[in-house]
Amino acid sequence: MPRFPEFAQRIHRLQPSVFEKYRTRMKEKRSFLIHLHIGDTYLPPDYQLPIDPEFLKSKPYFNRYCNTFGVDSFRRMLESKLNEDNGFKVEVENIFATSGATNALSASVLSLLNPGEEILVLTPCWPFFPGMVELADARVVQVSFYLRLYQEPELNISGHLEKYLTSSTSALYLNTPNNPSGKVLNLSQLRQVAEFARKHQLWIISDEAYDGLIFDKHQQHCVATLPGMFEQTLSIFTFSKSFMFAGLRLGYLVGPESAIRVINKTMVHQLYSPSTLSQYMMIEPLKKRHSWIPRLRDHYQELRDSSIRQLEIPVQSPEGTYFLFFSIRDYLNGRTYWQVIDELIEAGVAVAAGEDFGKDFGDYIRICFTGERPERVKLAIERINKVLLKKS
Amino acid sequence: MPRFPEFAQRIHRLQPSVFEKYRTRMKEKRSFLIHLHIGDTYLPPDYQLPIDPEFLKSKPYFNRYCNTFGVDSFRRMLESKLNEDNGFKVEVENIFATSGATNALSASVLSLLNPGEEILVLTPCWPFFPGMVELADARVVQVSFYLRLYQEPELNISGHLEKYLTSSTSALYLNTPNNPSGKVLNLSQLRQVAEFARKHQLWIISDEAYDGLIFDKHQQHCVATLPGMFEQTLSIFTFSKSFMFAGLRLGYLVGPESAIRVINKTMVHQLYSPSTLSQYMMIEPLKKRHSWIPRLRDHYQELRDSSIRQLEIPVQSPEGTYFLFFSIRDYLNGRTYWQVIDELIEAGVAVAAGEDFGKDFGDYIRICFTGERPERVKLAIERINKVLLKKS
Repeated sequence: MPRFPEFAQRIHRLQPSVFEKYRTRMKEKRSFLIHLHIGDTYLPPDYQLPIDPEFLKSKPYFNRYCNTFGVDSFRRMLESKLNEDNGFKVEVENIFATSGATNALSASVLSLLNPGEEILVLTPCWPFFPGMVELADARVVQVSFYLRLYQEPELNISGHLEKYLTSSTSALYLNTPNNPSGKVLNLSQLRQVAEFARKHQLWIISDEAYDGLIFDKHQQHCVATLPGMFEQTLSIFTFSKSFMFAGLRLGYLVGPESAIRVINKTMVHQLYSPSTLSQYMMIEPLKKRHSWIPRLRDHYQELRDSSIRQLEIPVQSPEGTYFLFFSIRDYLNGRTYWQVIDELIEAGVAVAAGEDFGKDFGDYIRICFTGERPERVKLAIERINKVLLKKS
Repeated sequence: MPRFPEFAQRIHRLQPSVFEKYRTRMKEKRSFLIHLHIGDTYLPPDYQLPIDPEFLKSKPYFNRYCNTFGVDSFRRMLESKLNEDNGFKVEVENIFATSGATNALSASVLSLLNPGEEILVLTPCWPFFPGMVELADARVVQVSFYLRLYQEPELNISGHLEKYLTSSTSALYLNTPNNPSGKVLNLSQLRQVAEFARKHQLWIISDEAYDGLIFDKHQQHCVATLPGMFEQTLSIFTFSKSFMFAGLRLGYLVGPESAIRVINKTMVHQLYSPSTLSQYMMIEPLKKRHSWIPRLRDHYQELRDSSIRQLEIPVQSPEGTYFLFFSIRDYLNGRTYWQVIDELIEAGVAVAAGEDFGKDFGDYIRICFTGERPERVKLAIERINKVLLKKS
């Protein structure tokens, strides 16, 4: 009976935000501190049009509630984007708008997992996902995966995943391109994940937040578009990454109509619908995406390459996303991991701590090479080099 | 083990949206149908300023993530609004921005209630609240309350509520002004609710969505501002009602700092934060609220009075909100309740069905008198009169 002043138990299983524990220290540093710990873009919005006086005239009802599945014209744009760019064959009824990928993931987890049930979470993983599973009173089973694929592209995926399966496993959380490792699954790897899920009747929650942010000659494939997988997969997208509009909190969920209706019901009980205005505002950027996203990708790829060149310790070059994720174990020089993180903050760089991405990554750090202006990122990497290469 | 294609059990306990069951019928009727079933405003936004070309220059980072507690300048405006208008004595640390009141309520329920625990839900109540409790695997205990206060203002509230208390009761859901009944608790009634909650150590989730929409000489009081109640109360506000910006999905939660930090953590796992742009856009309307809200209230009060005058069956005049909620039992004339609802849709009026507001209200309907233009509301009431007064 957790009456006032107690809270529900599930809340105690949540980890604080990756950034929460640094907040006081970071406040002291303020303008001196370069923020490489958040995944975001330094670029201002490229689309003047939505903030045009004409916009108000053309969208007189942006202030009102919308259909909880989303604004019709926006969903129709998403339908053609998914079919043209991502290899889907969907209709408007397979899509609904959400408040970012976060909201789509959270509504999916609550809709799929009973208390006590397990979900295979391939790691390293986005830090907030395990907390969503805790909020549903379900259980996270971490499976070290993405870094392993860099080292061992021919890994027997089914054999690897089967070791973690129990009679309580209901679903699998996949994220390609992967935050934080930048790993992009190739078609053969993705087919093995799909086959495993089909064999064991697991739902796939496929987090495609980094849709479009893929470098070099790597190819993006959506697991839902593989034969027989659409019915079993919830594919989740956002406008926060390749579209650079995290501040609008807009994403979308794609899946079989029956699941869409169920998960929308959950979302309605979490926030009713995403912003009507945000949906209207993203129609034009969606139309212009083919001229914009390739340029953004080239720019980010340059930033990736220059960051890796400047960093004086060897790191895996990411195949997608905008992160570098690497172990600092060999650079502790007698210091503890947390002493190094503190020294980094003292030197003016905030990084994300590895343990937030999974239990096997306690000696890793993640940095985002696009969240601050390039000259600031450069300065931050200079500081990282100094702290990490310091002799004890 | 609800693997694919099954969903989690909690989803089956959710009622479909009030409007879901009418969707097909309503689509057939489209432009002919007058929508009185949604609580919204017909008025276009009054604030040109946020959609000004200057806005982009002054807020260059509206596209980026914000602090999950909200944009600083926005929270500071909320602080002065709460202290000046609502009798609070709060600081920025007691407030965080949410995606509407819906999101604040949902995050609060998940943070306070363990599976199997009970919350006293005073009814008639907003239809989505019980579903939030179901998503947390907790239990709703309905307590018929607001209509009773119209009939019996001197009701012994403590005695009435105590009958529903069990050893599993953790919290109480209060909503004044109440949707759908329009009841506004007076100070003496509110004090009794507070005393009851304090005596039994119950958290109060105080839904103040209709803040500012109060008619005649009724006074608004926030339960959190009563002596000793702040620590025990989560007060929840929105920009969807008196500010008319439902489409921005913006609200805020006010409470003791310890609770704010816990509930923010839950919200982060539901959607990260509300829209950065929405927060910037509501700063100016907040500044201008004293010139705008009294005019809106007067206008809505006129609409209320003209609607009641036109309606040919007697209804309780609401003390706040923008709804009329009344029984149609005496007007069935041999028809079932659902036959009448169908006849109303056939005649071109969508209304909200009473059972969605609680088990004791199966013969009620709710209509919103501000969601369509006044001449459309007038036409809709003419149609309601025809259907309800039809002889069998």
